[in-house]
Amino acid sequence: MTTMSRSVHNFCAGPCVLPDEVLAELADELPNFDATGMSLIEMSHRSGDYDKVHHETLDLLRQLTSAPDDFSIMFIQGGASLQFAMLPMNVLPADRTAGYVVSGTWGKKALADAEKLGSAYSAWDGADGGYARMPTVDELDIKPGTSFLHVTSNETIGGIRMAEFADPGIPMLADMSSDYLSRPIPWDRFAVVYGGVQKNLGPAGMAVVFARTELLDSIPSGVPAYLSYNTHHKGDSLANTPPMFTIWATNKMLKWIKANGGLEAMDARSERRSGVIYDAIDSSNGFYRSPVDAASRSRMNIVFRLADEDLEAAFLTEADANGMKNLKGHRSVGGIRASVYNALPDASVDALAQFMSDFAASHG
Amino acid sequence: MTTMSRSVHNFCAGPCVLPDEVLAELADELPNFDATGMSLIEMSHRSGDYDKVHHETLDLLRQLTSAPDDFSIMFIQGGASLQFAMLPMNVLPADRTAGYVVSGTWGKKALADAEKLGSAYSAWDGADGGYARMPTVDELDIKPGTSFLHVTSNETIGGIRMAEFADPGIPMLADMSSDYLSRPIPWDRFAVVYGGVQKNLGPAGMAVVFARTELLDSIPSGVPAYLSYNTHHKGDSLANTPPMFTIWATNKMLKWIKANGGLEAMDARSERRSGVIYDAIDSSNGFYRSPVDAASRSRMNIVFRLADEDLEAAFLTEADANGMKNLKGHRSVGGIRASVYNALPDASVDALAQFMSDFAASHG
Repeated sequence: MTTMSRSVHNFCAGPCVLPDEVLAELADELPNFDATGMSLIEMSHRSGDYDKVHHETLDLLRQLTSAPDDFSIMFIQGGASLQFAMLPMNVLPADRTAGYVVSGTWGKKALADAEKLGSAYSAWDGADGGYARMPTVDELDIKPGTSFLHVTSNETIGGIRMAEFADPGIPMLADMSSDYLSRPIPWDRFAVVYGGVQKNLGPAGMAVVFARTELLDSIPSGVPAYLSYNTHHKGDSLANTPPMFTIWATNKMLKWIKANGGLEAMDARSERRSGVIYDAIDSSNGFYRSPVDAASRSRMNIVFRLADEDLEAAFLTEADANGMKNLKGHRSVGGIRASVYNALPDASVDALAQFMSDFAASHG
Repeated sequence: MTTMSRSVHNFCAGPCVLPDEVLAELADELPNFDATGMSLIEMSHRSGDYDKVHHETLDLLRQLTSAPDDFSIMFIQGGASLQFAMLPMNVLPADRTAGYVVSGTWGKKALADAEKLGSAYSAWDGADGGYARMPTVDELDIKPGTSFLHVTSNETIGGIRMAEFADPGIPMLADMSSDYLSRPIPWDRFAVVYGGVQKNLGPAGMAVVFARTELLDSIPSGVPAYLSYNTHHKGDSLANTPPMFTIWATNKMLKWIKANGGLEAMDARSERRSGVIYDAIDSSNGFYRSPVDAASRSRMNIVFRLADEDLEAAFLTEADANGMKNLKGHRSVGGIRASVYNALPDASVDALAQFMSDFAASHG
């Protein structure tokens, strides 16, 4: 093993930081799983050894999220991007319509695919406000006869989140990719919850989809095999070869979340940790500013600007030199973005707040 | 690291055996990639470190396969199963038809999805012969006006392969999942070549798709984003978060193939190694028998029966006790199946041949 420490602070918004112990276990067990003489990733996905990991991962997801029994849990490759297409193919047959909340880049992409494949429309679009906030229920334009409301619980790029899942009067379909398993999920509000695992749950390679089983009865028969939720539901996500490494690593990450108190604890932790950085912004006497509405501030992706935007490049360079990596805002919006996913150590948050204070003092 | 040796012989037909050195490197580099202080799987997929691995993997694929410049190479999650749907969505718009060679389970699945999505028909079906052989070109029933012929170069379950890619007079679309990169690819015969990586190329988690770029101009605009080859082609397979671990492991496996002589060497090796096992069958005086046509014998998945089928359970138990794992035939056909993918050591093949001889001597 290389000797350099993993002491950098990784604020990456995409594939997430993982706990040191999860990476160490994966590395240790990779060549020879449980004294079988094989790597887990060399095994048949129908072997007993793999099967145990696979079903334990499904069980951990149900346990941690408290998903009711009438939700199927599925591992499907392709991330949330493929779900943007699968969702309308599966739950929006000709007689069902969904309104979409367009709260940023991801909501927009979800709607674009839904319009191609089913009956879908924009129930709210935050473009005029620069996608700086989430709508209230009262602002939604839900047409009569609409079956579902699609929401993005957290917009990674804009740095906004739905602070609560207020009842819009119809069941919601939710892309939770970027705050998945960092907060409890009020199941009575949702028909389908989905998200890529690569922010809070594990390495890139799949989405986890929770769907009410009653919806699976009305999937159109013309949906091809891999794209039908029924294939994955009936086959326990083993109908074809699953992404075994991603599932194995997610299993370890779920155990880490459980050992650290589960979703209530992750929720409290994200409030506290994001609060440390928002405080650093708010107490900077205008040196830093948050471009988003206070009520919609994300606890996962903290986006901010420097009042003097010309200083942002220096901020990023000095932060990087101090071991704080991946703080550059998304290329479409610029600025700074600190992503504070489940596995980011508290020390990274504290280091950033201190650095922000020091940088403001020396450049203010 | 656990101390038990990796001395088992892994004849698994699904996710494949990987070279010891590939697994050792992955384990060594997993916690801290190239002294960056981060794991590669924790990085942004838009970072320079990951980008280098990603593009090197694409370059290695082009180099090893000698794919011409007018083929796009794409990493797409979902394995060959998702390609069964994407292929007709992308290359079989209303005015194009494909004949499918149904040579076994995989050909049948490919056709089932194509019939749902486009204009496709069976150009040959081996059901009457128990899927024990591939057709000759003369036997194909290609209707006038057909644009493509879809083939499965190797049927994993039946244990048959297309020994040569004879010219059917129209371009072929080929699922090469189970003999991918174990033989040269005569590009002038093909419009699209695809396959899951989990047999010969790496751990499960994606397909590699080679498609003629001229086909990408006529993809219907209604195809949703992830399901369009254009998304992956134009985005260099980085349009959304790619399966980074699978790509990284595939990178190492491709280097291993290159260091071991490339596709010509893999081809010669597969002929020699499968020959050792077929010889053990053919020289057993009927104790073992091959159920497949001699001209269609797979070099990857060697399927055989014992003349006394009641002895098969004992064969599998004794083989397992001797460290020879995953030799059971697919549940749909029974019998024995030895999969001899690229990374299986020669010693495993020799051990199996010796065991077959010993078992026949003691039970014959």
